[in-house]
Amino acid sequence: MNKIVSPLKLAEGLTEHWSPRVIAEVDDKYVKVAKLKGTFEWHSHDREDELFSILKGSLRIDFEGASVELEAGDLYVIPKGVRHCPTAREECLVMLIEHKDTLHTGTTQTAKTRGIGDQLRPL
Amino acid sequence: MNKIVSPLKLAEGLTEHWSPRVIAEVDDKYVKVAKLKGTFEWHSHDREDELFSILKGSLRIDFEGASVELEAGDLYVIPKGVRHCPTAREECLVMLIEHKDTLHTGTTQTAKTRGIGDQLRPL
Repeated sequence: MNKIVSPLKLAEGLTEHWSPRVIAEVDDKYVKVAKLKGTFEWHSHDREDELFSILKGSLRIDFEGASVELEAGDLYVIPKGVRHCPTAREECLVMLIEHKDTLHTGTTQTAKTRGIGDQLRPL
Repeated sequence: MNKIVSPLKLAEGLTEHWSPRVIAEVDDKYVKVAKLKGTFEWHSHDREDELFSILKGSLRIDFEGASVELEAGDLYVIPKGVRHCPTAREECLVMLIEHKDTLHTGTTQTAKTRGIGDQLRPL
């Protein structure tokens, strides 16, 4: 039997910004939670879509020439290959659904990149 | 650019019980919302996991010899191949993530089975 998880409660317990943690898996996807504040890095995921579900707060995602403003309760899918950069002016809690192979900084490796070993540590 | 969607608001607008509607897609998965009341059918999905996210209300899922009680905010993944039967004593709103090929009644076809054409009608 799988465990029942509460994405909001697990995200509230995170202590580091931009450091997603895996809370469940669905076939070849991981379900993750993250606490975001400030601006991340411009990046894209060439082969996989990325689902954002806003649990608390708000998040702007900039694209080249456009942006979306997401509020708590909103869900948004970033299509594969689309360069994007998230910004949380205030602290924001999100749930993400991504392919197990997806690096959260996409094809860009930076100081903010967290390997999947980090992301799989138990919460 | 994809649309921003609010799973809770879209689920609140549904008029039929046990009739999921697609609100987004992530690679080979559909994101769906559904309004549930009463008891569904015992079924399993042989090749795909199924994610339940409870948006409002509560849902019991019975397995052979066990059950889970899910509340608003909970997330639960039913592993592939596991026979299960959901029951909502009061009306319950859920978000589901399933493989695009998944039939919501699994390998059991019943009067409650909705084809993907029905599920893809715009909300």
